[in-house]
Amino acid sequence: QSIFDGLKNHDRGSLARAITLIETSNPTKKVQAKALLNLILHDQKANEVHSLKGPKTFRVGLSGPPGAGKSTFIETFGKFLTEKDHKVAVLAVDPSSSRTGGSLLGDKTRMPELSRDMNAFIRASPSRGTLGGVTRTTNEAILVCEAAGYDIILIETIGVGQTEFVVADMVDMFCLLIPPAGGDELQGIKKGIVEVADLVAVNKCDGDLVSAARIIQGEYMSALKFIRKVNLNWSPQVLRISSITKEGIPELWKNMCEFRETMSKTGDLERKRADQKKIWMWNYIKDNIMDLFRSHPVVREKISVMEDRVSHGVLTPGEAADMLMRDFMKD
Amino acid sequence: QSIFDGLKNHDRGSLARAITLIETSNPTKKVQAKALLNLILHDQKANEVHSLKGPKTFRVGLSGPPGAGKSTFIETFGKFLTEKDHKVAVLAVDPSSSRTGGSLLGDKTRMPELSRDMNAFIRASPSRGTLGGVTRTTNEAILVCEAAGYDIILIETIGVGQTEFVVADMVDMFCLLIPPAGGDELQGIKKGIVEVADLVAVNKCDGDLVSAARIIQGEYMSALKFIRKVNLNWSPQVLRISSITKEGIPELWKNMCEFRETMSKTGDLERKRADQKKIWMWNYIKDNIMDLFRSHPVVREKISVMEDRVSHGVLTPGEAADMLMRDFMKD
Repeated sequence: QSIFDGLKNHDRGSLARAITLIETSNPTKKVQAKALLNLILHDQKANEVHSLKGPKTFRVGLSGPPGAGKSTFIETFGKFLTEKDHKVAVLAVDPSSSRTGGSLLGDKTRMPELSRDMNAFIRASPSRGTLGGVTRTTNEAILVCEAAGYDIILIETIGVGQTEFVVADMVDMFCLLIPPAGGDELQGIKKGIVEVADLVAVNKCDGDLVSAARIIQGEYMSALKFIRKVNLNWSPQVLRISSITKEGIPELWKNMCEFRETMSKTGDLERKRADQKKIWMWNYIKDNIMDLFRSHPVVREKISVMEDRVSHGVLTPGEAADMLMRDFMKD
Repeated sequence: QSIFDGLKNHDRGSLARAITLIETSNPTKKVQAKALLNLILHDQKANEVHSLKGPKTFRVGLSGPPGAGKSTFIETFGKFLTEKDHKVAVLAVDPSSSRTGGSLLGDKTRMPELSRDMNAFIRASPSRGTLGGVTRTTNEAILVCEAAGYDIILIETIGVGQTEFVVADMVDMFCLLIPPAGGDELQGIKKGIVEVADLVAVNKCDGDLVSAARIIQGEYMSALKFIRKVNLNWSPQVLRISSITKEGIPELWKNMCEFRETMSKTGDLERKRADQKKIWMWNYIKDNIMDLFRSHPVVREKISVMEDRVSHGVLTPGEAADMLMRDFMKD
């Protein structure tokens, strides 16, 4: 397929077309998308044999509440990486954007320099669709970007619903970006998200906010003490950075490289990727099968009545589930 | 049914038989169990009309790492409540007990006084079965205990797998019991569990451990600052208690009563129970439907091959899910 050849030649136009193909809901194009993914997978398999040091690419998840300064950070960090001869792809996952007005879209205005950088590629997820659909697309977009020669994939998300956890299950390293503000601002940080972070960065550590950033850094450092380690071989750090003065950015990258090295050496990274693939397969199955259930003609009609009866205590949850399952299985 | 009459007469033997009936896997007994649950539900509906102040019973979840002193606490707290003329049922959820050697079983030795108390009823979940099955049983056992006149239901669990979160979704108030020890001991506290707690109690605040308990209390108080409120109308407290000297136990109960009153007044408690029932219905459906999927003859044979192909990168997770779904739907 010509798109595949374009990808191998690191052609940006082909990359954009490949991702559009993956996002399609058109059935004939879907077949083409599958063929493309197969070509990519086979090519990856063939090259993989020669790499014994773990994955050649690095997938980094980036999340944080609105106001953490994610766009400015990605602009600065992306440029920092391309200057080091990395090729950086930025994928934004935001299934809520149709509701919130597309906060992550408009990349050209959001990251003006990075979007002009020939070694960077920025793409937002389609603004419509279910979380399952959008994330499947993102997972496949990662593969396509890697095939096109991008070695660092940044996956950005905002803290809405389950997206952050979903992104944490897609990446090698998950980073949480927070603003140097306590109190109410902290409420914007999703329950449990600090716990899946491999790195916490306090952004906007410049000007008047330096001392506030120090305090927040200290608070997170002590909060992290209460958190069970996700990984036995890694202790997450809390770093202070400024996307404006660029202070702390080299240290941040150094920490990321250390993580990658440690995790590669122990084989954890390879295992993580393999496990993630299985998790995704099961997630897709669960989504599909629950869709199948909800759209079953008899079940669909009864769901709201059953929910009502259950919440009013006329039926136990177990009984209602049994009745709906019986309807579903009749078919 | 005679068991139902026995329950209404607050007969302990009938209660024990009712729970055994619910736990059965025998098909004819299952029909009987359903009939019993229906009687209970109708009876509850009939009585509910007269209560406008929210639920008459109080369901309290209790969790904590091994070593937190849960058994001693339940012994002391249970006696404290029965002395105040409450009828207390203790249900232990521990789907792991077949593996860990039944840490929650052996109630007569674990809580010698409470198990002899005529106003207390203690029951461990069956030691075998899936989490879904055990929790369904527990949910139904709550109803049965309430029908038998128990007004306070304590649901105890240890921090294994998802049980704590599952219990948090069954109760009016979820309490976390912790030992006065930092460092490694803290690792025993499940990720994210502090965040669903409506109350944290530092146990063993007696003798040499008082100052350690104070430190831990302070640390948890500051950690709670980082946690998004589950409930807008309630700020979880961190209390120090001793199950031996009984210090802090009256204050603990006072805090629980305040929670219950606040949540009843706002209508949150009623809403929480209604929502929990819907959550449970969907959980049962998901469990059943995934069991159906995994036990489908064609799917069952292919699962491990597909998982293998996916983790080795021969198939994308999405493709493998599509293929398995096609097999499943052929039937």
